[in-house]
Amino acid sequence: MHSLIRTDTSINLPIARVQVDDEEDEENKRLAEKPRLVIIGGGWGAMGVLQRLRPGDFHVTVISAETFTTFTPLLPSAAVGTVQVRSLIEPIRKIIARLRGHFVQGKAVDVDMKGRLLEVEISTDGRREHVYIPYDRLVVAVGSTSSTHGVPGLENCFQLKTISDAQAIRRRVMDNFELASLPTTTPEERKRLLSFVVCGGGPTGVETAAEIHDFCQEDIFNYYPKICREEVSIHLIQSREHILNTYSEEISKYAERKFERSNVELLTSARVSAVTPDSVIYTSRDPKTGKTEQHTIPTNFVLWSTGIAMNPFTKRLCELLPNQAHRKAVETDAYLRVKGAPKGTIYAIGDCATIETSAADHFMELVEQSDKNKDGKIDFEEFEDMVHRIKRKIPMAESHLTQVRELFQMYDSNADDSLSLNELMQLLKDLGNKITSLPATAQVASQQGKYLGSLFTRIARHRREFKAQDVLPSERDEVVSKPFRYFHLGSLAYIGNSAVFDFGKFSLMGGLGAMYAWRSVYWNEQVSARTRALLMIDWIVRGIWGRDLSRL
Amino acid sequence: MHSLIRTDTSINLPIARVQVDDEEDEENKRLAEKPRLVIIGGGWGAMGVLQRLRPGDFHVTVISAETFTTFTPLLPSAAVGTVQVRSLIEPIRKIIARLRGHFVQGKAVDVDMKGRLLEVEISTDGRREHVYIPYDRLVVAVGSTSSTHGVPGLENCFQLKTISDAQAIRRRVMDNFELASLPTTTPEERKRLLSFVVCGGGPTGVETAAEIHDFCQEDIFNYYPKICREEVSIHLIQSREHILNTYSEEISKYAERKFERSNVELLTSARVSAVTPDSVIYTSRDPKTGKTEQHTIPTNFVLWSTGIAMNPFTKRLCELLPNQAHRKAVETDAYLRVKGAPKGTIYAIGDCATIETSAADHFMELVEQSDKNKDGKIDFEEFEDMVHRIKRKIPMAESHLTQVRELFQMYDSNADDSLSLNELMQLLKDLGNKITSLPATAQVASQQGKYLGSLFTRIARHRREFKAQDVLPSERDEVVSKPFRYFHLGSLAYIGNSAVFDFGKFSLMGGLGAMYAWRSVYWNEQVSARTRALLMIDWIVRGIWGRDLSRL
Repeated sequence: MHSLIRTDTSINLPIARVQVDDEEDEENKRLAEKPRLVIIGGGWGAMGVLQRLRPGDFHVTVISAETFTTFTPLLPSAAVGTVQVRSLIEPIRKIIARLRGHFVQGKAVDVDMKGRLLEVEISTDGRREHVYIPYDRLVVAVGSTSSTHGVPGLENCFQLKTISDAQAIRRRVMDNFELASLPTTTPEERKRLLSFVVCGGGPTGVETAAEIHDFCQEDIFNYYPKICREEVSIHLIQSREHILNTYSEEISKYAERKFERSNVELLTSARVSAVTPDSVIYTSRDPKTGKTEQHTIPTNFVLWSTGIAMNPFTKRLCELLPNQAHRKAVETDAYLRVKGAPKGTIYAIGDCATIETSAADHFMELVEQSDKNKDGKIDFEEFEDMVHRIKRKIPMAESHLTQVRELFQMYDSNADDSLSLNELMQLLKDLGNKITSLPATAQVASQQGKYLGSLFTRIARHRREFKAQDVLPSERDEVVSKPFRYFHLGSLAYIGNSAVFDFGKFSLMGGLGAMYAWRSVYWNEQVSARTRALLMIDWIVRGIWGRDLSRL
Repeated sequence: MHSLIRTDTSINLPIARVQVDDEEDEENKRLAEKPRLVIIGGGWGAMGVLQRLRPGDFHVTVISAETFTTFTPLLPSAAVGTVQVRSLIEPIRKIIARLRGHFVQGKAVDVDMKGRLLEVEISTDGRREHVYIPYDRLVVAVGSTSSTHGVPGLENCFQLKTISDAQAIRRRVMDNFELASLPTTTPEERKRLLSFVVCGGGPTGVETAAEIHDFCQEDIFNYYPKICREEVSIHLIQSREHILNTYSEEISKYAERKFERSNVELLTSARVSAVTPDSVIYTSRDPKTGKTEQHTIPTNFVLWSTGIAMNPFTKRLCELLPNQAHRKAVETDAYLRVKGAPKGTIYAIGDCATIETSAADHFMELVEQSDKNKDGKIDFEEFEDMVHRIKRKIPMAESHLTQVRELFQMYDSNADDSLSLNELMQLLKDLGNKITSLPATAQVASQQGKYLGSLFTRIARHRREFKAQDVLPSERDEVVSKPFRYFHLGSLAYIGNSAVFDFGKFSLMGGLGAMYAWRSVYWNEQVSARTRALLMIDWIVRGIWGRDLSRL
């Protein structure tokens, strides 16, 4: 029976639902066997899971350090008051109320995988204690911190990952303008106070630089009579040759031209070597002499947004597992299950996770399964079987495995119409290098969350049949679902009152029209009608009365 | 010439304006002689002054620790998220932009009255320095702090005077509910976390208690499944017999009945003796035995709002002056000029100031001026003259000086048709005791501010004539204006989804209708159209989606 189900991997199981006479008894049973689903995190990933769950299927508990979920793509706007922070957040309790779930405000610090217990540190209002929360399935969606790249002095920088970050930035920006307006401030000090430096040319960095620029143009110069336009400087330091390098070249160029016109100074191919409390030190190569030169920018505001790194819980999780070697995130299989953890118990999604891309890691297993005649070589027929297996294990490899014959011949260096194990290993390694991991974006996290939510809902729907047919919980994922697949819906960024879109095949950029299109996309992505309305109101209020200059 | 003007105290001076041919020269002169007006504070008083000034009349500088002005009457609503804090504030820079004025974010710490220099401490972003700001006229509108009444442990209490206070309260309230929801919290601890204590039965205390109650009823119980209605307790401790005792008796009773029905526990005639980190200790007299008993309420939230006290700058100002003896505020004359300071240079308005009520302080002066025949006694004709002088010095005495003949006869104990100096002194002392000082409300501060703004504008308008006729700056106030008079426009308070109004002669109370009337009054009092719109939006958003439960 068991194997009968397992061969069917389609989404709709062809099993008739068991009919019971005593509905109430049924309900009681359901309650008693309701598994505990614990979700760590309150971001895009976690919300994605919650969206797709049905009430009554699981005992749901969400653990998050903040009581709300944040609409992160607009954090750069909130950092200068273009939108209000309250418009970007939605209380998690209001979201889980639908599922009659529970919420614990705390930070996950450790996990006992054998006992299926999550250790949570609660430190609210001066109280600090540890509680242990049992789980049947655990979803790790804890996000990431900023990568340091070993640069000293990053404690002098701001990050922009949370609402508190946006609030702190807004406070510092307002303080800088107030201090620069004081009669006793020296000209050098004014210059430093009015110098804004952004390190990192990704969407967050670019959008923040653009927002600061717009803020000065549209509001500051009107209300701070002592501040001149020429005194304000904005620098964007990028280690690569272009900004927005994950976007299409056109968009990258458009953004660069836009900044050039608006006096945001772009420093590309420049590397920050240190940040001090009152300056940023960076090196760049002189294009003529080829020599590396060191420069210093005096500043009182530095934003650091140069890629992601693991936060403490993700680090701890990786320590506990034998085969976790990824530097920036915890590795999962194609079903988003954390590699090395008991199957079907721990999942990881969003910025803290990365789906394995290396087929070479499965070398032995693949050879064993596909080398039917056990001759230690892989002929073409066997290779076709192997490609099928690789595609199932690593769906992201699919686009690189379309021309199987060509691939086979390319690596069959001695042309004996079969691949030796050495040749095969080389092929798998090269294949792994070709696959790019999914980017650390809200879109990926949200899709992964929805995938898991749907998967859990399907498992819950078939719980009875699984029981009857002795399908272990650890084996149910593959039965009800295909591996996770990411559908890129386009990227967008907002630069100086215009929006740029990247839909892979074509890109779009423009002025007011594009901006409104962009905004409507954002509205539809929002979690609740409430925040959608609030955002719309913010934009109208700002349109009429300008940004709020109050320092809260 | 000089005396000619001074005898005319009406508002419109009958002096023709000097005509000049060279308008531009005139303008330059005006600029050169533009006096420096410095306003300390960013509340109702300061905004009142700014509202009535004309651009170009003064070099205006506003000094305030916060960059915004606050709509204080709605702070209790902001403390639980019924309205957003951002909707209650307006950047001061946007208000002074009309006057092309300057803003300095700092705290006044000292004043050199001879050199006309104000010492301001600036402590933004870790920087702390002192600057000296010169003034020709200085308006002190620094507000007040909460009175301690010598109760120990007030560091464990919240105040509700600023936006930061409201934010801190909101954070604590949300923390309490989150902590009470934790699986590890003991029943006793839950009881303490869900116990809210308000000390002080004035409008702030009453409204805050009502807002916390509504918040629990309308939002908390829906989203915190672990919290039962019976576990939440709200206590209001009032030292007097009734709450809202500055309002009419009807209103006070209405509020008490309302609280009784809604399980807000009123503890009247109770005195707080100490506040500890986890409880409030109070004493009350047993109505039967007459014995004083001590009680303890375990709690994690205490609001302290029991009257006002001087803040450090007001204290310093009083130290510098010889005749300032008032305990709670700096005393001014009827023109709001600080008593003892060089005339026409320092004014004080709002909660930090009180207008003198004691005619006895002017005893010697009054006798000298009114005792025409110098016989050391005051006959009725002389007394009539004196009453006229008292009314001008202390306008608030007016309502007690209507029946002059009766008053005269009452104190003329030996019926010799004249008052001896002893009899007169007794009369003046009794008169002073009858006058109640103005309450420390937004309405008073705002009217005082507007009065000063109008007064300064009139002085500026007549500056040239004053110069031509050698009227000293210190003497101009009396020339252009009558003393300040307060017009009570009614008080209102919001209790449990209904509003109570007190218009002196009649009072009003009721449900939804009254509440909307109340809200429209508040909207019209708002400083800017922007905050008015934001407040309206807040009320609509809250009506549809409830309060925001996020802890920021």
